[in-house]
Amino acid sequence: MYGVILAGGSGTRFWPTSREQSPKQLQNIVGSGTMLQNTVQRLLPLISIKNFYLATNHQQAVETLRQLNSYGFSPDHLIAEPCNRNTALAIGLMSKVIINKDPDAIMAVFPADHVVTNSENFIKILKKAETLAQKGYLITLGIPPTRPDTGFGYLQQGSEIEDGAYKVEQFVEKPGLPKAEQYLQHGKYFWNSGIFVWKVSTILEELQSYAQNIYSQLDTIASSTQNAKGRYAYLELDETGNKIFSSLPSLSIDYAVMENSSRVVLLPANIGWNDVGTWSSLDDVSEKDPKGNVINGNVLAQDCNNSIIQGQKRLIAVLGLEDIIVVDSPDALLVCTKERSQEVKNLVESLNKNDHLEGKQPSIVKKPWGSYTILDSGPSHLLKRIEVFPGEALSLQSHQHRSEHWTVISGSAEVIRNNETFQLKSTDCVTIPKNTKHRLGNTGSELLIVIEVQFGNLLDEDDISRYEDRYGRI
Amino acid sequence: MYGVILAGGSGTRFWPTSREQSPKQLQNIVGSGTMLQNTVQRLLPLISIKNFYLATNHQQAVETLRQLNSYGFSPDHLIAEPCNRNTALAIGLMSKVIINKDPDAIMAVFPADHVVTNSENFIKILKKAETLAQKGYLITLGIPPTRPDTGFGYLQQGSEIEDGAYKVEQFVEKPGLPKAEQYLQHGKYFWNSGIFVWKVSTILEELQSYAQNIYSQLDTIASSTQNAKGRYAYLELDETGNKIFSSLPSLSIDYAVMENSSRVVLLPANIGWNDVGTWSSLDDVSEKDPKGNVINGNVLAQDCNNSIIQGQKRLIAVLGLEDIIVVDSPDALLVCTKERSQEVKNLVESLNKNDHLEGKQPSIVKKPWGSYTILDSGPSHLLKRIEVFPGEALSLQSHQHRSEHWTVISGSAEVIRNNETFQLKSTDCVTIPKNTKHRLGNTGSELLIVIEVQFGNLLDEDDISRYEDRYGRI
Repeated sequence: MYGVILAGGSGTRFWPTSREQSPKQLQNIVGSGTMLQNTVQRLLPLISIKNFYLATNHQQAVETLRQLNSYGFSPDHLIAEPCNRNTALAIGLMSKVIINKDPDAIMAVFPADHVVTNSENFIKILKKAETLAQKGYLITLGIPPTRPDTGFGYLQQGSEIEDGAYKVEQFVEKPGLPKAEQYLQHGKYFWNSGIFVWKVSTILEELQSYAQNIYSQLDTIASSTQNAKGRYAYLELDETGNKIFSSLPSLSIDYAVMENSSRVVLLPANIGWNDVGTWSSLDDVSEKDPKGNVINGNVLAQDCNNSIIQGQKRLIAVLGLEDIIVVDSPDALLVCTKERSQEVKNLVESLNKNDHLEGKQPSIVKKPWGSYTILDSGPSHLLKRIEVFPGEALSLQSHQHRSEHWTVISGSAEVIRNNETFQLKSTDCVTIPKNTKHRLGNTGSELLIVIEVQFGNLLDEDDISRYEDRYGRI
Repeated sequence: MYGVILAGGSGTRFWPTSREQSPKQLQNIVGSGTMLQNTVQRLLPLISIKNFYLATNHQQAVETLRQLNSYGFSPDHLIAEPCNRNTALAIGLMSKVIINKDPDAIMAVFPADHVVTNSENFIKILKKAETLAQKGYLITLGIPPTRPDTGFGYLQQGSEIEDGAYKVEQFVEKPGLPKAEQYLQHGKYFWNSGIFVWKVSTILEELQSYAQNIYSQLDTIASSTQNAKGRYAYLELDETGNKIFSSLPSLSIDYAVMENSSRVVLLPANIGWNDVGTWSSLDDVSEKDPKGNVINGNVLAQDCNNSIIQGQKRLIAVLGLEDIIVVDSPDALLVCTKERSQEVKNLVESLNKNDHLEGKQPSIVKKPWGSYTILDSGPSHLLKRIEVFPGEALSLQSHQHRSEHWTVISGSAEVIRNNETFQLKSTDCVTIPKNTKHRLGNTGSELLIVIEVQFGNLLDEDDISRYEDRYGRI
């Protein structure tokens, strides 16, 4: 079986932990590991890591590879889409890529940012789905609802096809509360999980039947894939591929295929599934203290009940809270009521409208070579903590409006400054004047940490001329 | 008239804005200026700055002087007490100091951390009190209550002595709610504001009558005052004075004198007084938005009502809050309900018990030469932003366990390193090895800002040998 992970989350509902540039699946929201890592981890008993494929965007590609590196995920199994065109196109493209290697392949599709607490049952059901897929069915996993949720689409169970597998009577859009309550009572409605299993040839046939405009371009797009420029060998599309991809309609696989096909089969899946859609959903998937609080980080809580307090290093003291959510991050803080946690995404929209960078940009800015964090700023200086991964290096660059002063905290730095190249270690420092070609690299085997002080009257990420770059950013 | 300001606040009820080492009166809690500055400012129409005296402790002395410097406050009018022994002793000592200069002096006593919104009326009432004081009365200002507050002592109005001035029928300790409601209804009970006016000779006579143990030591203690070591010429006690001071009982002036003396006069004072005792009291003294919120700092609020959101530079996004208090600071965050805001001081006690430094130490640590702020830390480094006031300098010092690297952000630094002395300006840097005598000073006319990286396996404020210090810290 092949596993296809769709990792296209937008990062607004778990703000400030997630940001547009650092979405939910790449964060540790529940337990240990990021949601993406947990998604792969729980499937490894069934799907070999070499059979995993993943679709995401350019911005997340390198961080995604880093998170999956230790599992042995193959970089060229990641496709960086030029833009988000929803699941129909992503699944279609992945199907083409996989069928070109294995015409009989069966593939399972998984969102990257859901929780499944009963992995054992999950694997059992996926195996059953595999058997059904062999017979030409499109299997969709339906989750028995545990509350009248109005945030999901529902699948109505139809007649039994074989033991425990059903036709879908109808697909229901997100219902209002009265309907959702009926569905919960009724017992034959299931949440649409977005987890699918099918033969690759089957889904392609159905795309051909019901989404001809998408299907007709898949060959061209698939053959336009190429290795990304630079050190990271994920796949991207060439210019033609990007153009076609971007011109296609944004359709969900449910809308494009599942609601139309007669080959759809519903497998009820009691697997402890949760889409972790809002901060308040941590209530369902996290460990609680005796007063019903979900607390992480450096927190002192007195007389709080049923609250969610997500701290980090900074001290948070909370007193007398009831059904309140507090999420702290180095550069932004969220405090809201649980019942309003659905609206956090609107809050982020407001932030973006009001030019609050914190709406999109995380406090730790990930780069292909590592990351930087702004620690202090003033009218003519900016202080950064820079981390460079072993073997990586920033581009050979210069700045028109700023000089930089680096102090090495730990690790081994190789610094190029004009025609000099020198090695720096902990406690060493160097100054890079304006308009000077320079490069910072990590030649050691440990993380390189550098404190950078920028001086100048215009301190802007865009003030950069790149002469050489390992990651194709010229 | 002389003004005596008692500045002995403990800084726990306005945590995290105030801390033990940086109490409420030194903070900007309401409007512009610190509470101490506002206390002085509103009295200047009546009391010349050269007639102000102030009692505080050693830790706050320099910052207190800095805050009053621009008003022309005389440093040797500040007495740094060796420990807190409540108001009877503080007032007694101040009375001795003042009477030695002016036997006919009239003095008014003010807490340093209260708000008075009707300054004009306040001045009028103080003038009236002055006239009464000339006649040998001890005048206490009573505040007409506006709610059944159980946090204050009350004064019951007795018979009229002269137009608008009354005997005190009785002093009432903090009442329970039913009593407090009766007092509010009754109309002849007033809050005990802690603001007093009297002839210095009168209060000394009464101390002699009712607090003989304190009175008998005042001459010795007053004659033990001396200029503090170092650049700041405030007063402290010599060893003998400290010993006697510390051995005396901790009594309030109310308990020691006012409740016993027959010369006490109550002046009702409708002056917009507020002791700003808890975060929720900001409701009474701050500007509110149309939804009843008190909001300061970088805050995005959606659908919040009657909440208090005190931010700083960091972004705070709040959604759907009702009667919630959020107070942010660089290193600690408080979220609590308004009705529990009285308990913030217990919360701080818990922090102190659990060895959370944030309970006592502010994020910006004030020093006689300026301040430092910790920006980053790791297993073998500590990153600080150091600010040095013009003309000031750290001690000549060395460290056994750490080296330091300084980068000048702005201002003019004079650096001593072993036998060298050199000048550094913005973008310059220098390294100070372990066990090297060094000193950092500001020889310019602007604030000096330096980024310091400390390297070592033991990074501790106590790892310091001082060879020379301008502030008497050797």
